[in-house]
Amino acid sequence: MAKIVMKFGGTSVADLARIRGVAALVKREVDRGNQVAVVVSAMSGETNKLVGWVKDLNPLHDAREYDAVVASGEQVTAGLTAIALSAIGVSARSWMGWQVAIHTSGVHGSARILDIDTAEMNAQLATGQVAVVAGFQGVAPGNRISTLGRGGSDTSAVALAAALKADRCDIYTDVDGVYTSDPRIVTRAQRLEKISYEEMLELASLGAKVLQTRSVEMAMVHRVPVRVLSTFDPDKGGTLVCDEEDIVEKNPVTGIAYTRDEAKITLLRVPDKPGVAAAIFGPLAESGVNVDMIVQNVSEDGRRTDLTFTVGRADLDRALDAIRNAAPHIGYKDLVSDNSVAKVSIIGIGMRAHPGIAQTMFKTLAEKGINIQVISTSEIKVSVLISEDYVELAVRALHSVYDLDATPPQAVEA
Amino acid sequence: MAKIVMKFGGTSVADLARIRGVAALVKREVDRGNQVAVVVSAMSGETNKLVGWVKDLNPLHDAREYDAVVASGEQVTAGLTAIALSAIGVSARSWMGWQVAIHTSGVHGSARILDIDTAEMNAQLATGQVAVVAGFQGVAPGNRISTLGRGGSDTSAVALAAALKADRCDIYTDVDGVYTSDPRIVTRAQRLEKISYEEMLELASLGAKVLQTRSVEMAMVHRVPVRVLSTFDPDKGGTLVCDEEDIVEKNPVTGIAYTRDEAKITLLRVPDKPGVAAAIFGPLAESGVNVDMIVQNVSEDGRRTDLTFTVGRADLDRALDAIRNAAPHIGYKDLVSDNSVAKVSIIGIGMRAHPGIAQTMFKTLAEKGINIQVISTSEIKVSVLISEDYVELAVRALHSVYDLDATPPQAVEA
Repeated sequence: MAKIVMKFGGTSVADLARIRGVAALVKREVDRGNQVAVVVSAMSGETNKLVGWVKDLNPLHDAREYDAVVASGEQVTAGLTAIALSAIGVSARSWMGWQVAIHTSGVHGSARILDIDTAEMNAQLATGQVAVVAGFQGVAPGNRISTLGRGGSDTSAVALAAALKADRCDIYTDVDGVYTSDPRIVTRAQRLEKISYEEMLELASLGAKVLQTRSVEMAMVHRVPVRVLSTFDPDKGGTLVCDEEDIVEKNPVTGIAYTRDEAKITLLRVPDKPGVAAAIFGPLAESGVNVDMIVQNVSEDGRRTDLTFTVGRADLDRALDAIRNAAPHIGYKDLVSDNSVAKVSIIGIGMRAHPGIAQTMFKTLAEKGINIQVISTSEIKVSVLISEDYVELAVRALHSVYDLDATPPQAVEA
Repeated sequence: MAKIVMKFGGTSVADLARIRGVAALVKREVDRGNQVAVVVSAMSGETNKLVGWVKDLNPLHDAREYDAVVASGEQVTAGLTAIALSAIGVSARSWMGWQVAIHTSGVHGSARILDIDTAEMNAQLATGQVAVVAGFQGVAPGNRISTLGRGGSDTSAVALAAALKADRCDIYTDVDGVYTSDPRIVTRAQRLEKISYEEMLELASLGAKVLQTRSVEMAMVHRVPVRVLSTFDPDKGGTLVCDEEDIVEKNPVTGIAYTRDEAKITLLRVPDKPGVAAAIFGPLAESGVNVDMIVQNVSEDGRRTDLTFTVGRADLDRALDAIRNAAPHIGYKDLVSDNSVAKVSIIGIGMRAHPGIAQTMFKTLAEKGINIQVISTSEIKVSVLISEDYVELAVRALHSVYDLDATPPQAVEA
């Protein structure tokens, strides 16, 4: 007998038929003798509808009221799922964030979970009752409803699993696991049986939409084994996100990620003196622009240098405005930008033990005639910025060179 | 400066434009220097949608889960209304039932309000902040969300007004007050400036849909002055529901009500002996059938009599089944039913002081050739059951004979 948390996203509870499907999946786990807590998102489309209403009424709305309105979506799904469970003979009850209670910070709209009361829920789980918990929500100081920000239901599930000391947290979603690369452009991409928290964290922050970054961080901190699997094909096995030590066979590179949501900004002939980076990145931070890769060239004459950085494509105009407004304090000669760039990354905990992994990447791209514009590295990741036109070519070439291609090729199976 | 509760029903908050309209009405009261608590229903159609989902998933759903799902409708409106208020510069916050807290009984789906905590809300009202309270909901023992049953937002508003010791409870709805009769069939019907709690209670239970019966009861018990007025024409004045003593000019009859939702059942030649009424009405109660008027004729031979009663038209088949199943215990000779009957009632606290009011009713109907099938009376009401075909004729004739017709006639104004 195990204690497990099962989380279902918006497409998994999109309508009554799918909610019945969720109930059937939960019943399977109950029938296996497991104690089950279920975390549900809002029915897909509901959150967008509610957010739209709030913004229409007042773009500068009170975040506490935003939370009260938006959290209703998960409340509905939690109640409906409990009803669908009892309809097939499974004892269940719904729990709103304030009922559990899931205590959060007071940063409404993107609150952080501080603490979860589990005594009452644990007592009820022990009687065999399924707990259906509204995801994405909690209760903030002052007894107000809070929400965790987009994708927060993943975080709710992992945090609940940690608090309940669950054996496993199963994230049911619309894909059947984590792949070595995006199967839409790499037909030979393979589903990973296991992936380490660290790798998953890099993948999530590099644009893989399977799991929300904060939920992976939390799983890593609390060592909660997380399984990603498909609501619509639950027997396919999925991917286990777990401790590095639990992964026996390690490729040097585990996966190839990419994101097209990149724009590059270069400031030419910036004074090469202390404080200039602060003069550039201070205004960007104040404008709410997240800066990703940063490269500062070695100064040729010791006085002026070029500085390149990347931002999200949607932030490009805002970033350029912020730089132009700060121009007198920065003192650059020219400002150029390019929004047809993409970032391609190789990720793998095996990199730490295998020198030369980055060199293979650079050589492979060079052989394909792909120019590398910016490089950034971490202990388990190498990212390069290239022209958007070469994304598919680069990803497929790297997927092959690091021995990630499936055999027999999936293209034949399909 | 007064403390007032304003309640807005589903059609008044049906979309964002109307919610903005509600905010404007609330702002008027705030600008007059009043302390304002607002009670809102769900956007019209929302509750039906949610109830439909619950019933689709499980007709035998857990009432606690029904409440969790359905209460979300008012949660959304409360948040949106607070946002619409702040958009026009009015400080406001939403309050869910559990936040207030509005403590209710544990009879989920039709809970009764037991107690309302007002200390925190009163403190906030005193600062000039508007409290926007989700109607229809409360919190039951065990910290579960409860709902008060259909139309419960009226009850929420009156109960809140009583708890806050408000000077007035304004019920904004889609009609502009309480009329002497249904303006759809009596063109000369007049809006009443004032009506007593007792009369309003009779009107509400006789089918007038302006106010929910329980809310009138509660207003009467706590002596909360309730004003019914139109969201869409708020300056028309409305109708004040108040103490009998506050009404100076009293007609013997205040209003003429009718309901077509009636069916008549007659048991012929029932044994005229102790216990027979119990043998008949016991099975009906067990089947959940509400019996309204009951008439037992005087027995001619002292051994057998006829017994007639009325039920809601939707309950007729269920009632007949219950009687037929209990036939061996009752021992009637024949069972006849008629679902083309209607109930017409005259209501007025003045009746108590004016003998002969009922006689005028019977005489008027006789002059029009309308046969009275059943009569029932209370201290301030006389109801008769007649053929449905004569409803309009009867109501108009009674409206005239009791001097309720407006002059100049509304038909000319229209």
